[in-house]
Amino acid sequence: MEHQSKVQTLIWDGQNLKLIDQRKLPFIKEYVVCDSYEKVGTAIKDMVVRGAPAIGVTAAYGTAIAGIQYEGSSKKEFLEFVEKAISFLAASRPTAVNLFWALKRMKEVLNENRQLEIKDIRKKLIDESEQIEIEDISINKKIGENGIEAFKNFKGKVKVLTHCNAGALATAGYGTALGVIRSLAFSGRIAHVVVDETRPYLQGARLTAWELEQEEIPFFIITDNMAAYMMSKGEVDGVVVGSDRIAPNGDSANKIGTLGVSILAKYYRIPFFIAAPLSTIDINIENGNQIPIEERDGREVREIMGRRIISEEMPVRNPSFDVTPAENISAIITERGVIKSPFDINIRKLFNNK
Amino acid sequence: MEHQSKVQTLIWDGQNLKLIDQRKLPFIKEYVVCDSYEKVGTAIKDMVVRGAPAIGVTAAYGTAIAGIQYEGSSKKEFLEFVEKAISFLAASRPTAVNLFWALKRMKEVLNENRQLEIKDIRKKLIDESEQIEIEDISINKKIGENGIEAFKNFKGKVKVLTHCNAGALATAGYGTALGVIRSLAFSGRIAHVVVDETRPYLQGARLTAWELEQEEIPFFIITDNMAAYMMSKGEVDGVVVGSDRIAPNGDSANKIGTLGVSILAKYYRIPFFIAAPLSTIDINIENGNQIPIEERDGREVREIMGRRIISEEMPVRNPSFDVTPAENISAIITERGVIKSPFDINIRKLFNNK
Repeated sequence: MEHQSKVQTLIWDGQNLKLIDQRKLPFIKEYVVCDSYEKVGTAIKDMVVRGAPAIGVTAAYGTAIAGIQYEGSSKKEFLEFVEKAISFLAASRPTAVNLFWALKRMKEVLNENRQLEIKDIRKKLIDESEQIEIEDISINKKIGENGIEAFKNFKGKVKVLTHCNAGALATAGYGTALGVIRSLAFSGRIAHVVVDETRPYLQGARLTAWELEQEEIPFFIITDNMAAYMMSKGEVDGVVVGSDRIAPNGDSANKIGTLGVSILAKYYRIPFFIAAPLSTIDINIENGNQIPIEERDGREVREIMGRRIISEEMPVRNPSFDVTPAENISAIITERGVIKSPFDINIRKLFNNK
Repeated sequence: MEHQSKVQTLIWDGQNLKLIDQRKLPFIKEYVVCDSYEKVGTAIKDMVVRGAPAIGVTAAYGTAIAGIQYEGSSKKEFLEFVEKAISFLAASRPTAVNLFWALKRMKEVLNENRQLEIKDIRKKLIDESEQIEIEDISINKKIGENGIEAFKNFKGKVKVLTHCNAGALATAGYGTALGVIRSLAFSGRIAHVVVDETRPYLQGARLTAWELEQEEIPFFIITDNMAAYMMSKGEVDGVVVGSDRIAPNGDSANKIGTLGVSILAKYYRIPFFIAAPLSTIDINIENGNQIPIEERDGREVREIMGRRIISEEMPVRNPSFDVTPAENISAIITERGVIKSPFDINIRKLFNNK
């Protein structure tokens, strides 16, 4: 069952990173070429690329590009330059932990190879970022396979709701939540996907719907506030979403609105699944209260795809993420299996066996 | 405490009805002039005017206009003409019961005065519609006063969330849910109002925010999917919304998304109030399952204020309302007092005492 998704989020040519501009999809398919780590950092910050795993892979390439960028011959300067790039990239967005995880891997490669010549360190950085990309795709496919396991109690075709985009566009390819949906669809198990449009940025309506259309998986789009209605009418058997950071107790940060969906699912006794690679688990925190929540510019709420809907002076709030408490999560689907409650014990077990 | 709202939803000049075009607010303040019942019906259908009580008043004036429109001298033709107008107006929108309630009152006036001359029946119809408008405003003010009672258990200033627009624009003036908020604000009791933007039509972001701004009541706008986050952070002490139809068991239809807000409020143990005139209670049904839910054109989801966000071919759903079960409602604030659970008994009591 070797299915490839038809969407290419990022293209690495050994020198530059091309990112499909996700702010313009689905109407305009345009790649942003990044030939400096500064451009990579800005692309993450401005959401040319988004989605926790995709941000991780992109930041890794940003580090490799920094290595290529340095034109001098001083090893000390080279190391400082790449370290500065890593700090710059780390400051691009605060919530998704995969960013820090990928940069940590790059920094370790840098540290472990300090004794080599510049050109060899440069090569190691490129190799590591390519490795992170390759791993991400194979991890997603394993998450997809394990998703089948998570849905084993359902007979026949299932109706699945997803929020935001945790698809090929949010990863190096295939997707986490959408990877699960792809795997189910390739096994003939999807009745339809209910796609939350996901304001303010409309990742559901613009990106998830676009991916599902290309895969010919049946779906329909709703505004976020229609989810309860759809659940009340039996249009949702299960929810699958991605995550930007998971605490060791199971609390999971994801796109704003996920918390609300989890509460609705609980009310209607609908299973609620998180699909994410283990790199999303942040073992340095205890619970979801310690996850920093990015609050972005109010312009995203005041405008929709460039169309002003309310005046500049109107007060708005724009938190980009929320934290779903572990108690609302039926299971976390990872590349190493489906983790169930009690999450604190089962997550620790998984990490100890690693 | 004689406060007037600063927004004029409809202006009746004794001949024509001018409706502020709520599709264009807040950027364009433009009135649509209705000089025929057909134009009135179309204005309701196309949402020039919206909000259950406002639709009722508008439909009443539409009937009066039909009486003015008829230029012949046959009583039989006149009565048939007005009855046809009532049927036409009744077909404009299916969910809000105030529409049918107002048309029933107009039909009763027509039937009770069949023996009079055309010009006198015409006068009776005009009088009745003016009466319905005047009553609506005074009813709203009483709802506002009773709202203070509903919030009596809160000390000091309260943080209130509202969904959609149940304000002056949704009524002949003052508002139901926003009437409660106005009364609280005029008593110095509002810390802030959290305004759900209310996709697809953005009645919250466009209309409620506009009314609050004019009244200088503190508020901020959120996308609908941020409500859970705001509740989890202690930004909401209570929820107040309007209703389009209330079943005698307390089940209440309101703008799509209200059901979800009620479930979130329940999860966070936040009181959830419906504010509505008694004319919203439909004694001809038993429960919320019998309330017809209008499903509108998908274009409203595919576009935002004229800006296409997804392509025409994308499958969408667009239910305009949902039904909040009585179990999620703390109380219903009416012009005759605050109704609490058990709603079936207490609503029946109120109607019997009427």
